[in-house]
Amino acid sequence: MGIFKDNGVVYKAVDDVDLGPDSDEFYLRANVKAPRMAGLLVKVFVWLLESPILGGILLYFLKKNNLIHKLVSFAELQEEPLFVPLHPHHGNEEKETICVEAHAPPQEKVEEAVNCVNNEEEPTLPQPSFHRWTVLDYATAYKSGETTPTMVAERFIGCVRESSSEKQQMSFFINYCVQDILRQAAESTLRHQRGEPISVLDGVPVAVKDEIDCMPYPTTGGTKWMQKVRECRNDACCVRRLRLCGAIIVGKTNMHELGAGISRINPHYGAARNPYNRSKITGGSSSGSAAVVAAGLCPLALGVDGGGSVRLPAALCGVVGFKPTFARVPHQGVLPINYTIGMVGILAATVEDALIAYAAIAGGDSSHHSATTVPKVGLPLLKSANYMSADIKIARYREWFDDCTDDIKACCSNAVAKLSDKYGWKTVEVTIPEIEVMRLSHYTTIGSECSNAIKSYLQNVKKEEVGWDVRVGLAVYDSFYSNDYLNAQKIRRRQLQFHEKIFSIADVIVTPTVGVTAYTIKDDALKTGELDYINGAALVRYQIAGNFLGLPAVTIPVGYDSCGLPIGLQFIGKPWSESLLIYIASAMQALCISACKKPEVFYDLLTKE
Amino acid sequence: MGIFKDNGVVYKAVDDVDLGPDSDEFYLRANVKAPRMAGLLVKVFVWLLESPILGGILLYFLKKNNLIHKLVSFAELQEEPLFVPLHPHHGNEEKETICVEAHAPPQEKVEEAVNCVNNEEEPTLPQPSFHRWTVLDYATAYKSGETTPTMVAERFIGCVRESSSEKQQMSFFINYCVQDILRQAAESTLRHQRGEPISVLDGVPVAVKDEIDCMPYPTTGGTKWMQKVRECRNDACCVRRLRLCGAIIVGKTNMHELGAGISRINPHYGAARNPYNRSKITGGSSSGSAAVVAAGLCPLALGVDGGGSVRLPAALCGVVGFKPTFARVPHQGVLPINYTIGMVGILAATVEDALIAYAAIAGGDSSHHSATTVPKVGLPLLKSANYMSADIKIARYREWFDDCTDDIKACCSNAVAKLSDKYGWKTVEVTIPEIEVMRLSHYTTIGSECSNAIKSYLQNVKKEEVGWDVRVGLAVYDSFYSNDYLNAQKIRRRQLQFHEKIFSIADVIVTPTVGVTAYTIKDDALKTGELDYINGAALVRYQIAGNFLGLPAVTIPVGYDSCGLPIGLQFIGKPWSESLLIYIASAMQALCISACKKPEVFYDLLTKE
Repeated sequence: MGIFKDNGVVYKAVDDVDLGPDSDEFYLRANVKAPRMAGLLVKVFVWLLESPILGGILLYFLKKNNLIHKLVSFAELQEEPLFVPLHPHHGNEEKETICVEAHAPPQEKVEEAVNCVNNEEEPTLPQPSFHRWTVLDYATAYKSGETTPTMVAERFIGCVRESSSEKQQMSFFINYCVQDILRQAAESTLRHQRGEPISVLDGVPVAVKDEIDCMPYPTTGGTKWMQKVRECRNDACCVRRLRLCGAIIVGKTNMHELGAGISRINPHYGAARNPYNRSKITGGSSSGSAAVVAAGLCPLALGVDGGGSVRLPAALCGVVGFKPTFARVPHQGVLPINYTIGMVGILAATVEDALIAYAAIAGGDSSHHSATTVPKVGLPLLKSANYMSADIKIARYREWFDDCTDDIKACCSNAVAKLSDKYGWKTVEVTIPEIEVMRLSHYTTIGSECSNAIKSYLQNVKKEEVGWDVRVGLAVYDSFYSNDYLNAQKIRRRQLQFHEKIFSIADVIVTPTVGVTAYTIKDDALKTGELDYINGAALVRYQIAGNFLGLPAVTIPVGYDSCGLPIGLQFIGKPWSESLLIYIASAMQALCISACKKPEVFYDLLTKE
Repeated sequence: MGIFKDNGVVYKAVDDVDLGPDSDEFYLRANVKAPRMAGLLVKVFVWLLESPILGGILLYFLKKNNLIHKLVSFAELQEEPLFVPLHPHHGNEEKETICVEAHAPPQEKVEEAVNCVNNEEEPTLPQPSFHRWTVLDYATAYKSGETTPTMVAERFIGCVRESSSEKQQMSFFINYCVQDILRQAAESTLRHQRGEPISVLDGVPVAVKDEIDCMPYPTTGGTKWMQKVRECRNDACCVRRLRLCGAIIVGKTNMHELGAGISRINPHYGAARNPYNRSKITGGSSSGSAAVVAAGLCPLALGVDGGGSVRLPAALCGVVGFKPTFARVPHQGVLPINYTIGMVGILAATVEDALIAYAAIAGGDSSHHSATTVPKVGLPLLKSANYMSADIKIARYREWFDDCTDDIKACCSNAVAKLSDKYGWKTVEVTIPEIEVMRLSHYTTIGSECSNAIKSYLQNVKKEEVGWDVRVGLAVYDSFYSNDYLNAQKIRRRQLQFHEKIFSIADVIVTPTVGVTAYTIKDDALKTGELDYINGAALVRYQIAGNFLGLPAVTIPVGYDSCGLPIGLQFIGKPWSESLLIYIASAMQALCISACKKPEVFYDLLTKE
């Protein structure tokens, strides 16, 4: 790392840092000293933080305790700031793929994706004991006339009502409009009756995180106030593209207020519960989107990933979570609560479904056009995939990889070993330095940007309307100096350089997706939310490079812990290498899917009753 | 602009702002309430600012008084931040030019430039009454054997000694090494004797601002301490390229400490004095570079322009100042005191010489490669220029244009009228909104970045080594929150959009270069520097778009005020349109050069004694 001096760390030059397995770089564990807080304690804490002078002093010690002072604010760095993780595109990032024009109509891209995945001639794969209905299952059922989009929509509505009942209290959705769902379903049913579905997504229910604009709903961002100060006037680009493919947008899923927390205990809309165990968290902030896919309500949902917010709940809920490269999916229409961190991502039951959704929404972020060329969308040839013939190198940083519960460590190590055993893929042991520094820099960045982005909204909102845990976050966010922000951006460039070096010797980096499995929702947190920075650090430990460096990443379920809670494995890829990531995730899925377990809470929208 | 609300301004959408001449956007004059301070007053002020609690309170009111609070910090803006003013390059920016590969050897680029300007068959231009020796004059004199680089170097050294004498106290240079100059001159003389000069720059004396790395000198940045904490190990890229053309690097010119001020009164190295009137300032921060060109010591000098720092002293000293588009000239080797603002620029006696130097140093900022294509270097065809045949539209914002002294207003208006009379070029009256908001945002940005960039250096420096006026600046810079910084970047994007709209109806924007001519150096400022935010605002009033938006800009002398002090006219161009700017400046020069006056302090290195 460097030398600790009076005030902060003097970082070594990047070229002087050994990234090999025997590097003397030490792995710094998250050193979080803040105790868990909920209930009355959080209220007292907010009162202290928001009081003029005491608050300032408290914040000073809070930040100092979390090492932000020494590792970020007072760091000496040789790098220039990297403000936006926008990667140059050289055109040779994606090999052995079908490439589709970035600006082609979404339904054409989806058709190409289906050509890649529609693998009917593959009988050798083990069949899963439990199977969530996929996009192609829906398409087949509609084509055969076994069911119709309207029948599915009606059953969907019934199931959502059941999930919201006193007994289940799953709190999946913040908003859903029965009339709007049925109208879309009726239109889709007509198209199917005419034998003219737009694409395989025609009539497929898709849920959307309530951070993404989607008519006719307000965009709450998990708050009770955002919709009063910011009107939702149009579909976001990604939603519009899904609609163009015929998908039925079934409502807005629950999320942590402003995404400013990862437990996904929302005091306003209820705590979304984990389908594998109702007493456990889903993780956040795309909580509802992960939970509805896990519970079988939709094969697909959209999320936004700002600090693992797609991958983390996907892992805790046992589904696939996929976050493309920064600027691969247009950001237009996503709640502007940060500028350089958040990206639209996909939650899906299978890797193949993630690919289909990816094909629909990917291509050309026009707001970032100016600084890069728009890459074509590469779709991996899963149809003809012979994983054994691929020569893939997987980087693993052992100390980081192992910084999780024993169950996760064993399960994920086992999964990586299988890749090697079955396909002969090589694992390259490496050292990725300063992971914890990156987490703190990301926190400084997302905090600064969030505070700035919502400041003008908050001027028209009563304090009391904001959740208690979020008020703690905002007080901290507001205290960052431009010096803190700029140093965080220097660390961003530094980390990018480390990752570029790792990617010069490996194709992907593998990690567990989270450090702990879903933990228990405690009663005292239901009204105030909770502050649990220790579990928080364990949840985001493996997520940050995906956001801070804009790298694509995917999580897939690879097993369960001793309590039956899902465990996810993550692959982090080079910029613009989504197709390779999907290819690898698909190979991993083939080895794990037979062990897939049915959740405690599950709805079947297709099987005839 | 927008609506003033409790805390700040709610800005209108860009598309709702009328940019026409009859717009109801009001022109906000700089509302600076801080009195001029120097001497003991500055010392007391620093003591107050640097004291823990009092300092905070004082800073709060200082910022509030300067409207930063209302216009920047608490602004409500719809734009996303634009962090780096890096423009996409479409390849069609430069017409009717010779295009040279960005990575061609500098001497080849210079040869192409000479082909553009070497205009011996043009007898119709009025000949100037006073003429500074140009690069081609040197080349001709060397070729004819009339003089040699060694003779010029010896005379140069004598003149610099004379300028530093008790009588003149011009304080042009911070460092120059007689031995190093004579060694370079001897080598050049040999090449000329062999009849093998590298280029027209071979043997030409070039001075370098002491913010640019250049062996064998330390890079002081105008301070007494930078050289102790940062070693200069190599030539900057721009210096290396000039050397490759055979130029003699004659030393490091004086500048405002850290560029953190524009008066260019440096308490450590003396106040650089204006060759047109020894009692007047040169302007800054590239003070010495402008002054040596004005005084005839070098036909060319390099500067760095962070807030007009090349154009402003050029205007006050009656020479040409040229600042290319952001990233056109590699920034490598420039003192890292900000990240998104400063750019290498050229000071020259004539537009043609500026073009030659531009050709030598332009092309491909490798540190910004990643985000853009490297444009070819376009060189305008001045040789065959028929200004009357060009159809050029010049935008002018009258209220802004006229916000200067009566002499400047009259002189600059007259110059613009001549362009219209002589060449038939059209003036388009426009409104460019929020100029003052842009100035405050730029100040917030450069302050934040400077504070961050030098923080780690300053940890090893005693406070007493830093100049008093700079300590005031640093205290203010250090107080900016990330919220201030991010809002300033939103204003950057907003202003870029305004400028793009202006450039859709005009080729260039014309302004006076500064709002006042060179003012008097007062004795009380010599030891402490001075704080004069009112004159400061008048000096930078027309400069900011060049830096904050990364636009190319050029100033050329167009006349003198009633006291005989030079007046400059500025053209601001579209991104990557340097060749058009040089073309226009050359046309303007042709109409003004006959009135050129000889400065009070002038040295002739070529004429036989």
